[in-house]
Amino acid sequence: MKINKNYLNLEASYLFSTIANKVKEYSESNSDKQIIKLGIGDVTLPLCKDVIAAMQKAVLEMGEQETFKGYGPEQGYDFLKSPIRDYYAKQGVNLDLDEIFISDGAKSDLGNILDLFDNDNNILVQDPVYPVYVDTNIMAGRNILYLESNESNGFLPLPDKNVKADIIYLCSPNNPTGAVYDKNQLIEWVDYAKSNSALILFDAAYEAFISEDDLPRSIYEIEGAKECAIEFCSFSKTAGFTGTRCGYTVVPKELVYEDTILNKLWLRRQTTKFNGVPYIVQKGAAAVFTENGHKEIMSNISYYKDNAKIITDSLDKLGIWYTGGKNSPYIWLKCPNGMTSWEFFDYLLTNIQVVGTPGSGFGANGEGYFRLTSFGSKEKTIEAMDRLLKFSLSVRKN
Amino acid sequence: MKINKNYLNLEASYLFSTIANKVKEYSESNSDKQIIKLGIGDVTLPLCKDVIAAMQKAVLEMGEQETFKGYGPEQGYDFLKSPIRDYYAKQGVNLDLDEIFISDGAKSDLGNILDLFDNDNNILVQDPVYPVYVDTNIMAGRNILYLESNESNGFLPLPDKNVKADIIYLCSPNNPTGAVYDKNQLIEWVDYAKSNSALILFDAAYEAFISEDDLPRSIYEIEGAKECAIEFCSFSKTAGFTGTRCGYTVVPKELVYEDTILNKLWLRRQTTKFNGVPYIVQKGAAAVFTENGHKEIMSNISYYKDNAKIITDSLDKLGIWYTGGKNSPYIWLKCPNGMTSWEFFDYLLTNIQVVGTPGSGFGANGEGYFRLTSFGSKEKTIEAMDRLLKFSLSVRKN
Repeated sequence: MKINKNYLNLEASYLFSTIANKVKEYSESNSDKQIIKLGIGDVTLPLCKDVIAAMQKAVLEMGEQETFKGYGPEQGYDFLKSPIRDYYAKQGVNLDLDEIFISDGAKSDLGNILDLFDNDNNILVQDPVYPVYVDTNIMAGRNILYLESNESNGFLPLPDKNVKADIIYLCSPNNPTGAVYDKNQLIEWVDYAKSNSALILFDAAYEAFISEDDLPRSIYEIEGAKECAIEFCSFSKTAGFTGTRCGYTVVPKELVYEDTILNKLWLRRQTTKFNGVPYIVQKGAAAVFTENGHKEIMSNISYYKDNAKIITDSLDKLGIWYTGGKNSPYIWLKCPNGMTSWEFFDYLLTNIQVVGTPGSGFGANGEGYFRLTSFGSKEKTIEAMDRLLKFSLSVRKN
Repeated sequence: MKINKNYLNLEASYLFSTIANKVKEYSESNSDKQIIKLGIGDVTLPLCKDVIAAMQKAVLEMGEQETFKGYGPEQGYDFLKSPIRDYYAKQGVNLDLDEIFISDGAKSDLGNILDLFDNDNNILVQDPVYPVYVDTNIMAGRNILYLESNESNGFLPLPDKNVKADIIYLCSPNNPTGAVYDKNQLIEWVDYAKSNSALILFDAAYEAFISEDDLPRSIYEIEGAKECAIEFCSFSKTAGFTGTRCGYTVVPKELVYEDTILNKLWLRRQTTKFNGVPYIVQKGAAAVFTENGHKEIMSNISYYKDNAKIITDSLDKLGIWYTGGKNSPYIWLKCPNGMTSWEFFDYLLTNIQVVGTPGSGFGANGEGYFRLTSFGSKEKTIEAMDRLLKFSLSVRKN
């Protein structure tokens, strides 16, 4: 039996284990110091009450003969797809129910969707990048092109007409940088995709964090995008579902490549390789869209965004350049005094006992940058920024 | 963008939609007749009380700050992997926790595992076959070899040394035939795999239905199998999880192909393309292994097996050849009087209003066979067999 040798080309990622080891080592020799972790990309607030109530009810239904649910539709129940359709309609995007596929998360479908594409496609990702985009394509042996994302383009690079890409990953609000494309920028990407017969994989996992009304939450707010883009969404960061697992993928019927309707191909893939998301979880996800559920999740998102503001206010005071924070749970800052990402990591850990993520872990262009997240508690975030301000000012004084 | 053209080689499956249409048509013109469906492959009994209680508790945990769970380990929580390891130990199979991967179902992982293998491998399936084995390999463009499974080998074909297969699918107890390999037969398969450097994908989704103690429930009961087999298990039929979604895949560390440890490859695949099974669902699955939970699920399985016995007793009375039923929820019978599968389908529908699944839908060797399942209610199963006996005897009389 021959293995898929593309797997041997994957680079082992030591980013988070290196961070963990450094933190462990430091705390062992500094047991009196309280470490604050602002590096995590996971939510911390519990699920909201309406979601819990809906799942409680669904669990009971599974225990009674009359209401028990066996196999559901692989693409998800209409009771969840309908409110998702309505949510899109509020943004002026009209979808059919069979264009919405319920998934166990954006990460899964971002990998699985690649089943539909030939290995002989040029993949365009940005550097810095969410590593899953890269690794899932290395696994299939596809050629990967990197687009420079940096301070000069605000970490929002635009298409280069001289580069011929077939599949383009866009993540907006971006992980790791927190930067968000505006409508005109997305129009450029849609134009590029259409004129190159390329496909955009649009990762909208953080759309719920967008505060500014004129920023697009969905690529389908751009005319023509239904003919060139698949969109991936998630309840993970929107509603705290990182351990509950639910998302959705939109595959418009207008997507036709080489005379083939991608929606039909994806339906075939899902019915063959997937058996749907648990009934209980889908019931919980549907509660996110009730009037009360929506209020509750927006209150949680506000909590995280208040944390982001605490962080960005401090960076402003210190004159540190950053992107993100306002429409994203991530703050991507430029390491002060020309420090490298890891130097700044050590600097924060040893001087003020705050842990973040070195930007170089997301690609070469991440060198010299650093990611903080707003998913900690308010108290810890305030404490971390107090420490940062006090320490920085004391350094400047001396 | 170029699509994966292998998808265009998939044949559309009309089996279940044709059945549905025929039943609909018949019932519309015979509204006085009560149709009994014994074709379904889905469980009907609700989840057992211990599972419900565990999920209720887990849902509440997700609603409280102190007990909330975000991202879990992609390969599953130890609280579920530990009882699975103990379950194997009872069968004399010793596994390490990191050889067990919690999945959202056997079907998903049977498809996903193929990511690890080169497309240039010869795939061996049996005919008749669970269509997912075939379709997932067609999607990757792999060459598929069919092994004759028929009455003369009891629908339990043994390896043919003249055939060079690289990846071998074995499903025991079998879907659709209900036949179960004994130890000596599996020894032959393990020997074949080892001498050909082939890999066995062992689908044990129905192992809980095995009644006879000397029949293997796991391929790892065979010496050497850890060096040549991956095993796929599911809570779907064992504990009624078809709509709750949980299973597990065993990838022993002894599996080494082309100097590569498959366990590491699979871990890399899962951490990159999967985010684990919901915490709530894993808590429910763990309750299947408590003393009370185990009693409850065995009681449900007994219910289904009583149905199977009602069916096989009737077939015995009529002198109809069949396999399965005793150690499986499926009964695979030879259509009487030389009828084709679809002729027998129509015969049952029009004469006694019983619906089953034509064997020809599972492959050429299924022609002339028919699948009944034991997942209906006891009352309906008795009623269906009463009708069959009465009608058959009246036909013989005339």
